[in-house]
Amino acid sequence: VNTVDLIEALAKRARAAGRSLASMDPARMDAALDAIALQLEKHEAAILAANELDVAEAGKNGVSAPMQQRLKLAGKTFASMVEGVRQVRALPNPLGAVLSDITRPNGLKISKVRVPIGTIGIIYESRPNVTVDAGVLCLKTGNAVVLRGGSESFRSNQALAEAMRAGLRDAGLPEDAVQLVSTTDRTAVTALCHQSQYLDLLIPRGGKGLIETVVREARMPVIKHYDGICHLYVHQDADFAMAERVILNAKVQKPGVCNAVETVLIDEAVASTFGPRLVTALRGAKVEVRGDARTQQIGGGDVVAATEEDWRTEYLDLILSVAVVPGLDAAVEHIETYGSHHSDGIITANESAARDFLRKVDSATVYWNASTRFTDGFEFGFGAEIGISTDKIHARGPMGLEELTSYKYVIVGDGQVRS
Amino acid sequence: VNTVDLIEALAKRARAAGRSLASMDPARMDAALDAIALQLEKHEAAILAANELDVAEAGKNGVSAPMQQRLKLAGKTFASMVEGVRQVRALPNPLGAVLSDITRPNGLKISKVRVPIGTIGIIYESRPNVTVDAGVLCLKTGNAVVLRGGSESFRSNQALAEAMRAGLRDAGLPEDAVQLVSTTDRTAVTALCHQSQYLDLLIPRGGKGLIETVVREARMPVIKHYDGICHLYVHQDADFAMAERVILNAKVQKPGVCNAVETVLIDEAVASTFGPRLVTALRGAKVEVRGDARTQQIGGGDVVAATEEDWRTEYLDLILSVAVVPGLDAAVEHIETYGSHHSDGIITANESAARDFLRKVDSATVYWNASTRFTDGFEFGFGAEIGISTDKIHARGPMGLEELTSYKYVIVGDGQVRS
Repeated sequence: VNTVDLIEALAKRARAAGRSLASMDPARMDAALDAIALQLEKHEAAILAANELDVAEAGKNGVSAPMQQRLKLAGKTFASMVEGVRQVRALPNPLGAVLSDITRPNGLKISKVRVPIGTIGIIYESRPNVTVDAGVLCLKTGNAVVLRGGSESFRSNQALAEAMRAGLRDAGLPEDAVQLVSTTDRTAVTALCHQSQYLDLLIPRGGKGLIETVVREARMPVIKHYDGICHLYVHQDADFAMAERVILNAKVQKPGVCNAVETVLIDEAVASTFGPRLVTALRGAKVEVRGDARTQQIGGGDVVAATEEDWRTEYLDLILSVAVVPGLDAAVEHIETYGSHHSDGIITANESAARDFLRKVDSATVYWNASTRFTDGFEFGFGAEIGISTDKIHARGPMGLEELTSYKYVIVGDGQVRS
Repeated sequence: VNTVDLIEALAKRARAAGRSLASMDPARMDAALDAIALQLEKHEAAILAANELDVAEAGKNGVSAPMQQRLKLAGKTFASMVEGVRQVRALPNPLGAVLSDITRPNGLKISKVRVPIGTIGIIYESRPNVTVDAGVLCLKTGNAVVLRGGSESFRSNQALAEAMRAGLRDAGLPEDAVQLVSTTDRTAVTALCHQSQYLDLLIPRGGKGLIETVVREARMPVIKHYDGICHLYVHQDADFAMAERVILNAKVQKPGVCNAVETVLIDEAVASTFGPRLVTALRGAKVEVRGDARTQQIGGGDVVAATEEDWRTEYLDLILSVAVVPGLDAAVEHIETYGSHHSDGIITANESAARDFLRKVDSATVYWNASTRFTDGFEFGFGAEIGISTDKIHARGPMGLEELTSYKYVIVGDGQVRS
């Protein structure tokens, strides 16, 4: 079977299953999520064995240590993945909610009702736990899902998808609602992008190259999960201790994630006072500092020269760009020019400056006096997240259950006609 | 200047203007809409003269009479277009609304606030009044807009866009927030599709070919306004008089629009009783009936044979396809197979059958005992509409002001860091 035919066939099966989920009582899906958790536990040994093969092969192929770490399911990761299924099961189901309900002067009753999107394709990195997280979030919201994980996690994903399908069967629901792309052929991504007849939405997570391919090839709506080139701006009225604490947290606590800060902008008015203090603290935390001319001057030998490319880079590492800016509007302009509209913040004790910044910066999440690391579905109280959208259409910022739904208008009349 | 450079330059200007609108007090835009209405009135003679040239050329080029009619601004159309500007001005502005507002256990205040989308490209048919309608809806919601109307309306659109830009200048706002594509070169559409750096959203309205081009070429989100292949299903428990009245209204009252019915499905149980009555009524209203074998049998010489293609056709004319189906699930299956998920209804006195239909049919608007012609922003009480989305992402069905907005999360802390 060639890849295009394979992908079309599984997208078609997913859509057929999705149609039957759409008109199902959501309580039946909660029962299926219980069954999926049990099937995962039942097959733990087989799943971990498959995962060990993936990890061993990745090691042989010279995959980096952090990537190998993300591949591993053994230990706490497996248990917390199964716990995650039960947490999603326990969340209130958003389906069927009446978002608005009006009666028109002609007597027509118009209700806007939350429904599943239909069939969702998810393309993600080599993190097998995402197979379960993303699959279960789609199922909870009545959607069928086509999963395409990174090739390094192929065996793990197959074992996990089989357990999920077994859970659906146990609950009397169509196992075809979970489809795993059963090839590591790279053309599968393009083939998925062309299934607009069967897939209502594609969610690509991962590197720039992947997302650019999907954006170019997709014939259906796409919600991008792009880079996070996040900024913190230290205003002249900042509390220096707070600024230092927040910047270190945003850079160091977990550098490999999209909501970590990549660039700090320091107001010229406090460059000579706050600047040296920040550089010292960063160096103490083993962070490489790349600065503009002014920052190099302040930091002396502790700051290397930043290139134009640095301002556009998501390091995902213990590296931070630092620039000195003449004021708030220049900070906003820098963020607009180089940022990715993900998470950007200001540190200041001055409310009017803060409000100005929060209004002018066009990012999914804008912060006043807090770490950018809070851009996260759990931290927002959603109970779960499928990722963080860098798009402005449909879903912006952390995507939870509601963002995996659509709506329809249900109109009840007694024979009304239009005049 | 070549078309690609031209389009890039105007998209860039629109984005710069859009950024300044985004942080503006919405009341200033209402003042600008007043100024736009005045400028349109002031330039009425010049606009109508440009429009007459367009209409005359369309006549020479053999453009059809209904299309010429849609081109004309003279008479009531001009006045109602200007009145439309004042109606939009009077609508409450959705910007700034707080969609949710929570305080987390760590003290972070997270507000979800409605903001403009940014810069919107609209590609539409040769209807010059849409230049003003769409432009004003985008401005009201704080968006800059790039307008590309059909080439037959080029002179009219230029005159209208100039008046709108003059209105923005009068109100002290950037005139670049309204950009008209100043070429009839067809490659302009593709060039617009590639401006993802400057355009946040494209809304294509029009024929299948145009929309397919946009879906294939666009690198930014698209909200499609596709065909309306709408259905009415006459259930066995239908009130025949109501069914006849609703079907005639949905077909005849305005056949050239997307919410007109194109196919009627009759339940086998009432085919021999309701069928002949419907065919007689349709023929009396000069509607051509194209039927399956059973409908031809019922209708005798009054029904021509429907081809497979007929079930997939948006006639936009006094033609109706009619099929007899064995029951509700077969009706749902027909709608799923051939419909466009726009507006579909059931006529029945049986509530449980109706609820079953409303749940199973996956369309933007589903009806019980009413004409499909009500799928319309004004009929829904939105006060305005930019069109009817056939997508399931962001906006489904009639799109009003709220659907032209996005949101951002505004987070206020006092130095919180993540642990």
